[in-house]
Amino acid sequence: MNDRNITRAFVVETPSVPGNLGKVATAIGFSGGDIGEVETVQVGPTSTLRTFTVHCDHEEQLKQIQEAIRELGGGIRLHAVSDDVLRAHEGGKIHMTSRFDVRSLADLRRVYTPGVANVCRVIEEEPEKARLYTSIGNTVAIVTDGTAILGLGDIGPVAGMPVMEGKAALFDRFVGISGIPILLSSQDPDEMVRTVKTISPGFGGILLEDIGSPRCFEIEERLKNELDIPVMHDDQHGTAVVTLAAVISAARSVGVDLKDAVVGQIGLGAAGLACCRMYMAYGVPKVIGADKSDAAKKRLQQHGGEPVDSVEELLKQSDIVVATTGVPGLIQEKWVRDGHIILALSNPKPEIEPEAAQSAGAAYAADGRSVNNILGFPGIFRGVLNARSSEISHEMLVAAAEAIADQTKPGELVPHPLNSRVHQVVAQAVETVAQTEK
Amino acid sequence: MNDRNITRAFVVETPSVPGNLGKVATAIGFSGGDIGEVETVQVGPTSTLRTFTVHCDHEEQLKQIQEAIRELGGGIRLHAVSDDVLRAHEGGKIHMTSRFDVRSLADLRRVYTPGVANVCRVIEEEPEKARLYTSIGNTVAIVTDGTAILGLGDIGPVAGMPVMEGKAALFDRFVGISGIPILLSSQDPDEMVRTVKTISPGFGGILLEDIGSPRCFEIEERLKNELDIPVMHDDQHGTAVVTLAAVISAARSVGVDLKDAVVGQIGLGAAGLACCRMYMAYGVPKVIGADKSDAAKKRLQQHGGEPVDSVEELLKQSDIVVATTGVPGLIQEKWVRDGHIILALSNPKPEIEPEAAQSAGAAYAADGRSVNNILGFPGIFRGVLNARSSEISHEMLVAAAEAIADQTKPGELVPHPLNSRVHQVVAQAVETVAQTEK
Repeated sequence: MNDRNITRAFVVETPSVPGNLGKVATAIGFSGGDIGEVETVQVGPTSTLRTFTVHCDHEEQLKQIQEAIRELGGGIRLHAVSDDVLRAHEGGKIHMTSRFDVRSLADLRRVYTPGVANVCRVIEEEPEKARLYTSIGNTVAIVTDGTAILGLGDIGPVAGMPVMEGKAALFDRFVGISGIPILLSSQDPDEMVRTVKTISPGFGGILLEDIGSPRCFEIEERLKNELDIPVMHDDQHGTAVVTLAAVISAARSVGVDLKDAVVGQIGLGAAGLACCRMYMAYGVPKVIGADKSDAAKKRLQQHGGEPVDSVEELLKQSDIVVATTGVPGLIQEKWVRDGHIILALSNPKPEIEPEAAQSAGAAYAADGRSVNNILGFPGIFRGVLNARSSEISHEMLVAAAEAIADQTKPGELVPHPLNSRVHQVVAQAVETVAQTEK
Repeated sequence: MNDRNITRAFVVETPSVPGNLGKVATAIGFSGGDIGEVETVQVGPTSTLRTFTVHCDHEEQLKQIQEAIRELGGGIRLHAVSDDVLRAHEGGKIHMTSRFDVRSLADLRRVYTPGVANVCRVIEEEPEKARLYTSIGNTVAIVTDGTAILGLGDIGPVAGMPVMEGKAALFDRFVGISGIPILLSSQDPDEMVRTVKTISPGFGGILLEDIGSPRCFEIEERLKNELDIPVMHDDQHGTAVVTLAAVISAARSVGVDLKDAVVGQIGLGAAGLACCRMYMAYGVPKVIGADKSDAAKKRLQQHGGEPVDSVEELLKQSDIVVATTGVPGLIQEKWVRDGHIILALSNPKPEIEPEAAQSAGAAYAADGRSVNNILGFPGIFRGVLNARSSEISHEMLVAAAEAIADQTKPGELVPHPLNSRVHQVVAQAVETVAQTEK
């Protein structure tokens, strides 16, 4: 332990010449930094990459240390200064791993030539055997064009890679699926659809991720129609599944019957529209929506919902209000009615603070802190892959939402995402529906 | 241990109803099979997939057991009967793995939201940081259209998947590279090039694999020109590197100076032509070649080699003869001259048996049993990725071949492929050249 204020990892490349490690260490020490671990990341024929963990007191000192290393010259390069989060991402978060040891020529002959030729022939004769003798049936492409990465917007697919790797890591840890990030350099829907179709033989499913609206609607629709493997845009349907689960939990906890209620959705972007479609698929008789975009309201109408003109009007007409606008404080306390259920899900600041909504009369109010897509997509894909389903239907998504709601503890909105039982139960619910639909 | 003749794994799916496991076991037992291990592969809500290891005496009995299971009905399905090699491929050979545990909310906040947003922002501001904070710089796409899988020909990309998974497994085991199979549904060069370019942001390199000739020339050439990451067609240049290494070893072992010799290549397909280009890059002053295709001979001429009209003529003019035709017995003993070096590399049967060549006067003769691409591609890509090189040059490939030859023990043609030192030495040789070329 070191009780100095700031800890950072300095990633430094030095030419492979004796004395360079000492030079770097001296520069850090003379600038007031304490060196903890020194880790060798890569030894090359001409240079060595090391990570120095450095403790210091304040930001000014941190800058002095960086300056001192940069001034060393002689080919010594400071590549990066990582904090704890950046540190966890060094080298990336995922790795394609061999499931077998290759220690003997016998191993090699079995998993590579000449043995592998027999496996190829078996699949050539009976293509469905690929499900058994390759990883295809357990592999999902995580596809993005980088146009709507988290709340960061169009930052490009490479800058979005840490999110895609995160999804792949969760696929592995939660449900044992092999998730492959696919970063597209094109933002043209035709080109994107064509590319995903051309690489689709290697995958058992396609998870579309962080693709901007309204392009995401066309891209998903076309891929669903033209491919015979399941396709899902997580930012629409993954979000909608978890939101529906939260709505079910909230309604249960105050004894409201969703199948006899009016649900109002504020924010009709890709996620909001998908939420509305999911409420309807679940059996909510009337779904209304508000958004500042007329195109968004029109899309809601096309899918069977009723647009209203203002947030105030929406609160007036709804029993349950769900907000996903990203606008903090959008819902005014005076609009809240007695008995309202209000889920103000925008992060990090909700449309109305739960305490404020409750003191204004709401029977139930929550923010979106715990509502996270990771409750949905792993189990949904595990279920459809297990069932060898060729698509993900609204019925399967509703089953997933009900399974999530059933796993929610009294008093909570959704289950804890690290409860592995949730993902299993979601997978089984989806698989069961998929088997009946086959 | 079981001393009966045949051991097979029966992959059987049964509806999840009590008694079904017993029915299958009874059917196997009454047909004369001994049951070893019973492994549960997948438990679904409606059905269970199990693998029964079964020992029996002869093929006839094996058929009876299969028949007995198929006759059970009631939804019981025999999916496959796997031998030892097929068994090793069940579920595929590779898996995308999270490099981190996700056990606590703190883990989740670090590797997923909200922490990951900072990493995205850092890369957005400085795109070259993607090399440090994502897996991209350590990831190679293994791309095929399935048109020339091993010696099996155009069997399609899905039937070729076991080979691609094998390459990915070896990338992982030998040099720690993350290899991602990409199966292309198109065989059109324009579409293939466009697709690989569109998905290229996610990869640090492209390994083209088992793409038929002559399309492979155009596809590789265009991708090399249009991408700023290393691209290599293994069946051309990977093969050529290992072949040149074998030629260097053979020449050394009989004291022939390659830089003052005539090398004759029989077979000028994609691999043969690449071999010729590699001999020239190494410094062989005269390279001649024979092939039944005039187009192939013309390509040799375009690259600086000299075509000859027959195999007999080629042997007459060459000091060193390399054959990669796939035609057993093509080289007649009477054509062999005293002092010839003859490498008849076709598998499983060479163009001339080494013993026959030697008794006909050859100073050195070998077949291709030990000459395998796996000595080349792992270290070559490790080297260029370490150097962050944007291409793989002929100089790097020659350095790789020399490194392989230097690791070869006296009396052998190439090193043992499971000697991990070989891959390290190849990587360092390639990285050193790449650093000087930068």
